[in-house]
Amino acid sequence: MKSHRRITVDLGQRSYPIVIGSGLLGGGFDLAAHVRGSDCLVVTNETVAPLFLQGLIELLGNKSVDSIRLPDGEEFKTVETVGRILDRLVDGGANRDTTLIALGGGVVGDITGFAAACYMRGVDFFQVPTTLLAQVDSSVGGKTGVNHPKGKNLIGAFHQPKIVMIDTDTLKRLPDRELKAGLAEVIKHGAIIDAEFFGWLEDNIEALIARDPGALAHAIQRSCEIKAAVVADDEREAGRRAILNFGHTFGHAIERCQGYGKWLHGEAVAAGMVMAAKLSNIDPSEFKRLRGLLERAGLPVTAPSIAATNMLAAMGMDKKVHGKQLRFVVLESLGQAVVTSEYDNALLERILGAAD
Amino acid sequence: MKSHRRITVDLGQRSYPIVIGSGLLGGGFDLAAHVRGSDCLVVTNETVAPLFLQGLIELLGNKSVDSIRLPDGEEFKTVETVGRILDRLVDGGANRDTTLIALGGGVVGDITGFAAACYMRGVDFFQVPTTLLAQVDSSVGGKTGVNHPKGKNLIGAFHQPKIVMIDTDTLKRLPDRELKAGLAEVIKHGAIIDAEFFGWLEDNIEALIARDPGALAHAIQRSCEIKAAVVADDEREAGRRAILNFGHTFGHAIERCQGYGKWLHGEAVAAGMVMAAKLSNIDPSEFKRLRGLLERAGLPVTAPSIAATNMLAAMGMDKKVHGKQLRFVVLESLGQAVVTSEYDNALLERILGAAD
Repeated sequence: MKSHRRITVDLGQRSYPIVIGSGLLGGGFDLAAHVRGSDCLVVTNETVAPLFLQGLIELLGNKSVDSIRLPDGEEFKTVETVGRILDRLVDGGANRDTTLIALGGGVVGDITGFAAACYMRGVDFFQVPTTLLAQVDSSVGGKTGVNHPKGKNLIGAFHQPKIVMIDTDTLKRLPDRELKAGLAEVIKHGAIIDAEFFGWLEDNIEALIARDPGALAHAIQRSCEIKAAVVADDEREAGRRAILNFGHTFGHAIERCQGYGKWLHGEAVAAGMVMAAKLSNIDPSEFKRLRGLLERAGLPVTAPSIAATNMLAAMGMDKKVHGKQLRFVVLESLGQAVVTSEYDNALLERILGAAD
Repeated sequence: MKSHRRITVDLGQRSYPIVIGSGLLGGGFDLAAHVRGSDCLVVTNETVAPLFLQGLIELLGNKSVDSIRLPDGEEFKTVETVGRILDRLVDGGANRDTTLIALGGGVVGDITGFAAACYMRGVDFFQVPTTLLAQVDSSVGGKTGVNHPKGKNLIGAFHQPKIVMIDTDTLKRLPDRELKAGLAEVIKHGAIIDAEFFGWLEDNIEALIARDPGALAHAIQRSCEIKAAVVADDEREAGRRAILNFGHTFGHAIERCQGYGKWLHGEAVAAGMVMAAKLSNIDPSEFKRLRGLLERAGLPVTAPSIAATNMLAAMGMDKKVHGKQLRFVVLESLGQAVVTSEYDNALLERILGAAD
């Protein structure tokens, strides 16, 4: 077994480890030991399967492993796709000890987790994220779900994985654009919680883009630590966890108005963070540092051309709405985020108008 | 406000009250005080709506109340019906503070609870059960879900209600056959946990069938207390909660082989309890008492004619299967149930054959 870093998401009975390392899918971690029963269903997609599925199956040793390949893309993150997985489980006679394993990016993880949440009122599932975005964000914290034709992630469940296994070698095969989109969430973690980490990112952004293994491993570890701490504090987003949505109210509206899939999630969040920072009462120099780091990461810092009214309408359906009052995550300073419903409406409209 | 009995289901942060009384839907309980936000969606069916929907809406006072009427029947307990409810929530712009209220029997409760579990990863829901079966069993404990074409309750979630409000007056409008089916679960509670309550049922079965209000209120209260205690002990059925499935492995197989809806769930469970009791190592006099009480309640005590092989196949897909080993709830004595996978296979086949 190779060495790996280990973080615990502390949720009482639902606690689980995140293991991070190189070569884990190549035999570097005994994932089979975490499988409760004898049967696994690996859910992956057509892009990821040729790269990593065989390795995962070999890693599962003498377990009985079935697999299902979904088409690749956010447009397949639907109730219908979950139905396909559930049908496969039923047809295979899967029982309560069956383990679902998500091998892929955030879409595969969200779908698989929701299927695991719904099958027989909840079976085990593992996250084996293969994109940076999934490794630093979506695979940790138990948010699962699918999109409704009228809104993103409207249908879902909180269902924690039993383990998250992050093989950093998978990033060698990740397209540049997806690597950068993942960095948006890494930068977000620094911006909302950890000014020191943000500074480290400023010093190491070129190394991250150049896929320096040590830099990537540190960025993933610190992101997972930050997210794990926030989730442990507020599993079901009754309060503080909402700060993880920094940039997401704007970002989701961008994705919705553009049609899902045109911009990557991380790209929309990057532009959304700049908009949320404009709504924040932070020092102009800190605003420039945030925008500057996102730019250096090759991420968009302005929204595409969308009418302000359309953005507002899209936000009206956003999950972060509380009562009839919009709520935003804003920065008090770099490393310190708060949720607020007290913001300057004229400023909000200027920010949205500026995107036109 | 009229007086009512109150039981707490003790689940830490997810604890909730069960209130039981006469006239609650007629203004006897301030249900609106339990609604978190301003919006409610009442889910009911075409049979129940004309009887109780108007009363419930009035009880909710100044809340904004929408309602949806499902067709009546187990055959509509499907993913598609849940989709209808979710669509209604999305179309109405429902947010995380929206409360779903299930007004009806077990089918309505199971569907509504699952929709509440899935909408935005979980919103509040209330149970207002109007059948005896739902009042003494399905409305308490947080099991929600729908059927898959190949198996009952295969798709679902654990999602606890915020309150269960039981108006015993609703039983005045319940068809005789459904009242008796509900008594099957009441008798089950005595048989698995509480010999004294079982004795009380033997003394009061005629009063219950005659719908004596005091007898019904006591039977409901004691059933809810028993179920609440078991659920508090083992919310997600990792262990002891499985004893609530006494008679259900056989019962589900009967329902499945016959086609859902031919027998009521409680009728299938009644016959299933007799079969499970035959598999049990109990005193013959206690076996006769159980069968006798079910007979006096007007419930079937033998399964319909189904080939043993079909029953076994149906049980192979039953949720109570653990690994490849069938597990049954059996009685050690009246008032004491255990889960076992150690049973006499020849006896099991004789029991199933006896149903031919």
